[in-house]
Amino acid sequence: MHTVEPIQWTPDGIVMLDQRRLPGEVIHHTYTDYRDVAKAIKDMVIRGAPAIGVAASMGIAIGVEKSRAKTFDELRAEFTFICDTLARTRPTAVDLFWAIDRFKRRFDELASAAAISGGGPAAIASIKSALVKEAQKVHQERREADVRIGRFGAELLPRSGRVMTQCNAGALATGGIGTALGVIRMAVDAGHHVEVLVPETRPYLQGARLTAWELHQDGIPLTLITDNMVGHFLKTGGVGAVVVGADRIARNGDTANKIGTYGMAVLAREHDVPFYVAAPISTLDLSIPSGDDIPIEERSADEVTHLAGVRIAPDVPAAHPAFDVTPARFIAAIITERGVARPPFDETLPNLAKG
Amino acid sequence: MHTVEPIQWTPDGIVMLDQRRLPGEVIHHTYTDYRDVAKAIKDMVIRGAPAIGVAASMGIAIGVEKSRAKTFDELRAEFTFICDTLARTRPTAVDLFWAIDRFKRRFDELASAAAISGGGPAAIASIKSALVKEAQKVHQERREADVRIGRFGAELLPRSGRVMTQCNAGALATGGIGTALGVIRMAVDAGHHVEVLVPETRPYLQGARLTAWELHQDGIPLTLITDNMVGHFLKTGGVGAVVVGADRIARNGDTANKIGTYGMAVLAREHDVPFYVAAPISTLDLSIPSGDDIPIEERSADEVTHLAGVRIAPDVPAAHPAFDVTPARFIAAIITERGVARPPFDETLPNLAKG
Repeated sequence: MHTVEPIQWTPDGIVMLDQRRLPGEVIHHTYTDYRDVAKAIKDMVIRGAPAIGVAASMGIAIGVEKSRAKTFDELRAEFTFICDTLARTRPTAVDLFWAIDRFKRRFDELASAAAISGGGPAAIASIKSALVKEAQKVHQERREADVRIGRFGAELLPRSGRVMTQCNAGALATGGIGTALGVIRMAVDAGHHVEVLVPETRPYLQGARLTAWELHQDGIPLTLITDNMVGHFLKTGGVGAVVVGADRIARNGDTANKIGTYGMAVLAREHDVPFYVAAPISTLDLSIPSGDDIPIEERSADEVTHLAGVRIAPDVPAAHPAFDVTPARFIAAIITERGVARPPFDETLPNLAKG
Repeated sequence: MHTVEPIQWTPDGIVMLDQRRLPGEVIHHTYTDYRDVAKAIKDMVIRGAPAIGVAASMGIAIGVEKSRAKTFDELRAEFTFICDTLARTRPTAVDLFWAIDRFKRRFDELASAAAISGGGPAAIASIKSALVKEAQKVHQERREADVRIGRFGAELLPRSGRVMTQCNAGALATGGIGTALGVIRMAVDAGHHVEVLVPETRPYLQGARLTAWELHQDGIPLTLITDNMVGHFLKTGGVGAVVVGADRIARNGDTANKIGTYGMAVLAREHDVPFYVAAPISTLDLSIPSGDDIPIEERSADEVTHLAGVRIAPDVPAAHPAFDVTPARFIAAIITERGVARPPFDETLPNLAKG
């Protein structure tokens, strides 16, 4: 269904498509050091919450695989250090912490089993191999989750007309068919005649560079707009639904996503256009009651004042919150791989999460 | 109070600051042919509704001044052709048509007087000189109107905190101290401690390139943001007022302004932030009952997909409505040089226009 692979585990190492260079250049990097993986996440070679989860998983796996630890205690100390390094990359994307927690639990399981078997080099080798398999499993689960999200979400989209999205919640953001774009892909597959309105999503232009590129490659009709056209097109453009991804969803449904999502949600409600969030269960953070507790990453002002290395503004202060929080009351439904949650989300989301 | 002159009538011709090159380069062009003035308006060497009115006035004046017409009828035919050429530059800015109408009326007055005096070369010379004076008068009136708008508007701004604007409704947009930025300048002069939130205003980046530059030159504190941060900062950023300019205001108060203004207005209302429009009376179009009748200029998609000549998106369709319409119900007040109009605008605006 799609050809774009943002990240792959290969015998040579972790191969990532450099999303900063798209669509002008299609460049891949191969990483064999977990510190380089952490830097790639921080520098946005790869981005999108689910893909960051996959990248962190693979980063931990390769870090452990390359470890020269001779003893179990050494390996555990190194594992902890690797996890801490990866945790310091992007604060908002909860999939990152979800992946790290999963690997910590898996490590503990493996460690217990190894302790029973007496430890030693064979046990260390078996932990390494199990963590590599775990990373590949995370990636495979992302792929399957996307397809399920896509199927559930496709039924919510209009049979024809326009659908608006934000940023890139596509294959590039997940390693599967995408969350929001997975919904659109599955709808198109099911015969919906939809055109996608793609806001360019400054400052990084993920909409223009990534979403427009992905959709264009799949032959799905689209129109690119600037971010400040969102209100105008929701008012006049025949938009039947908005579907976006998420970086973190609080227990009550408040959703952190790429900056601009909140404004889009308010404008969608103003025009009675249903606003959907598509995200895997791993993006749920049931530990926090509301969006007030979601940390918002503040990135460099240079990313606002410069574009492709060229200064586009005078030397003035600029702000760069990378995300905003959309209160749950603006969200018609949250589409997960386990089904569609409707308000009240503080009841429906924990139920879905229980599985 | 400010140093920026977007347009000046000089003995050498009409001198325009090329706003497309700011802030990187400060380049002036001197025009002595009205066709070049028309092209400069169309290509956005100069922009902003009031400044377009000044440019059109000077364009007509220089066209007539350079005319080689020997007879009155020849001069009238040429005058009409000049006006038609200028009218085909930017469809949304009503100040353009206001200026053309004003010159047509002035021409008719001068023609009647000349007919009484018998016509002839002396009468043609006197019309030329009178139209040049009229253009300079339009410019002077813009300057005075801005100061009056600024005084009325300053009283509406908070004594401290943040004010948001959109695009550039500054000195560069009017030839005076600006409309929205004139309000901010006069407030700062009156001792208000305000910081301005400046959305960059894609695709032309008038906010980043022009407004940030103007304010920075005047030492007025500002923070540059991307357009999709508007909702986030209205929600969390302590914004006490929004003040924007206008390209055309219908009789009922519906206001066409730079794309993105509508979304900002909806978001301002969501957060109970008063939304003000600052514009001279010449921006009122009492001939149209509502915003539905305002033509919206559709500019080239290349302006969205390219920045400074560099492609920033794949080769996909893009939309570029240059303006949007904000319904009057979102507008707290319209600030003109004759006073502040409050709802119901269909009563208050015609009253102000009568003078």
